[in-house]
Amino acid sequence: MKAAVLHGKHQLTVETVPDAALREPGDAVVRVVVAGICGTDLHGYHGLPGPVTGPRCGHEFIGVVEDVGGEVSTLRPGTMVVAPFNFADGTCSPCQAGLHSACAAGGMFGVDGDGAQAEAVRVPFADATLVAVPVDRDDERLPALLALTDTMATGLHAVRTGRVAPGSTVAVLGDGPVGLCAVLAAREAGAGRIILIGRHESRLGRGRDFGATDTLQARGDAESVDFVQTATKGLGADVVVECGGGPQAQNTAFALCRTGGTVCVMGGPPIGDVTPVFFRGITLTGGLTPARAHLPELVDRVLAGTLDPGPIFDEVVALDDIVSGYEAMAARRATKVLVRP
Amino acid sequence: MKAAVLHGKHQLTVETVPDAALREPGDAVVRVVVAGICGTDLHGYHGLPGPVTGPRCGHEFIGVVEDVGGEVSTLRPGTMVVAPFNFADGTCSPCQAGLHSACAAGGMFGVDGDGAQAEAVRVPFADATLVAVPVDRDDERLPALLALTDTMATGLHAVRTGRVAPGSTVAVLGDGPVGLCAVLAAREAGAGRIILIGRHESRLGRGRDFGATDTLQARGDAESVDFVQTATKGLGADVVVECGGGPQAQNTAFALCRTGGTVCVMGGPPIGDVTPVFFRGITLTGGLTPARAHLPELVDRVLAGTLDPGPIFDEVVALDDIVSGYEAMAARRATKVLVRP
Repeated sequence: MKAAVLHGKHQLTVETVPDAALREPGDAVVRVVVAGICGTDLHGYHGLPGPVTGPRCGHEFIGVVEDVGGEVSTLRPGTMVVAPFNFADGTCSPCQAGLHSACAAGGMFGVDGDGAQAEAVRVPFADATLVAVPVDRDDERLPALLALTDTMATGLHAVRTGRVAPGSTVAVLGDGPVGLCAVLAAREAGAGRIILIGRHESRLGRGRDFGATDTLQARGDAESVDFVQTATKGLGADVVVECGGGPQAQNTAFALCRTGGTVCVMGGPPIGDVTPVFFRGITLTGGLTPARAHLPELVDRVLAGTLDPGPIFDEVVALDDIVSGYEAMAARRATKVLVRP
Repeated sequence: MKAAVLHGKHQLTVETVPDAALREPGDAVVRVVVAGICGTDLHGYHGLPGPVTGPRCGHEFIGVVEDVGGEVSTLRPGTMVVAPFNFADGTCSPCQAGLHSACAAGGMFGVDGDGAQAEAVRVPFADATLVAVPVDRDDERLPALLALTDTMATGLHAVRTGRVAPGSTVAVLGDGPVGLCAVLAAREAGAGRIILIGRHESRLGRGRDFGATDTLQARGDAESVDFVQTATKGLGADVVVECGGGPQAQNTAFALCRTGGTVCVMGGPPIGDVTPVFFRGITLTGGLTPARAHLPELVDRVLAGTLDPGPIFDEVVALDDIVSGYEAMAARRATKVLVRP
């Protein structure tokens, strides 16, 4: 079968690899219908630190079950399924607590096994990992459903861990797919004011479509702080969702937050100055989303027509042309790219 | 008047200083009835980094109003009052949000003005800062009320910010006054299991009196982690209250916490590795308690006889003998010392 293979910095090719195959009795093999390119993939493509180091990559996909192991009981060949970006056993204490992202036996597609940017994927713990979706391969909601595998699940997780209350003020730092999904989630949670800060006017426009009440095309941190302080009469935002990662953005997130508010780190682990937790009573939360825990609710909302994060995908490429998709995202010509094998 | 004056490391003397006096129309002068020695004072006494650098020290006191400025409307001479460890204007946005500890115009007694280890104290923003208590100077509940000025307010703040739920498992790291008060607060919040870890068997015994269900006299971090992991069948505690401060204790706090749980830093600003916030979905919260916000509720409970943190004080000294009180705490012969001018 064909798969995207990352050999090193900017050395991404589509090659023939061994077919995805069952290995454990709990496995399924899923033929990919649509896959996504994520900012995390781009990090790996640029040779930056992160989980994606190759050779395989891609962790967002929807597909059709092709084969199942002897212990798989809830899925059968032909079922359309959506996968969270990480597989998880569903039985350990983190999974039982709804934190599948911390499953000790689990892993991330494209990092700890087959990548999603391929014709097919071996899925460990298939019963616990995959969620059946009653759509066909031409359904126009596939982009919206694909967004749930990672970015929309992350946006929702920010709003849940940040306990966004109706009427509250939420500042979202970053206008990439996660930031846009956080805006959507904040709107759904009833936030009264949603301030989106990013670098790209086209993405900020999408953010306004998604519910942002105030947007700033910021060129620096000081400008972001001024904007939010002015917009909130000097109070700061109740909840700040930081989507970029890195110490500078995280420090800015604290500066945007009101005393006693909450900062959600969704873009990467907190490595900045977190002493405002002590001195300003700011709660630090967020983190890797347990997408599997959020998927059933999110799928229901997409199918009911009340949630549509699909517009975060603004370019579609064939698997053979995936390098052009990476390049479009790297050059910021595309917000997020959908791949069809 | 007499006051404790810190001239440098271990150079604490009781000397005659200018009498406490009104300076602003919102001030009160309070004659001290009882004062406390806090771990923060000890840090300063040992020449360690912290807010207490001398010359004045002490930030915990109860006293009788002696004089008030022209703009003080709720207090009059003769009223017995309890003070939070920091004064605050009561009108700024952090104060209005209940975070008086972050008041920009406020400050800490003994750091930003008169110290409490003295015969009298000038209290800025007296209307907003002081809370009247209907007791006389011989009331046996004075130690309990004095505990509310800082340590018990900190214990309660841990439980509130950590959202300790009925039946939950709380681990408290540190058997000093704050740790003991956190145990009391966790019991009041209905925690099902309260694990207290410290170094001193006598304090752990007090912790059991206060509601600790499990205690460990730990000699190292690994032992603490083993104990909590065993006690919780490998899950970790729902909420960990870290009372010591410093990176090592904070890192241990994360190791004791269950995936998806909460770490409350009460002993000092977080300067350790907080990346478990991202990878293990742990919420980091706590911080400086807004004692003023918690005082009315806490005073009511002490006066109603349902809360008694008084036993954290196990030694009483006269102001003239305050150095012996510091030494008793430094040598761990006393948990906490009450000072009578």
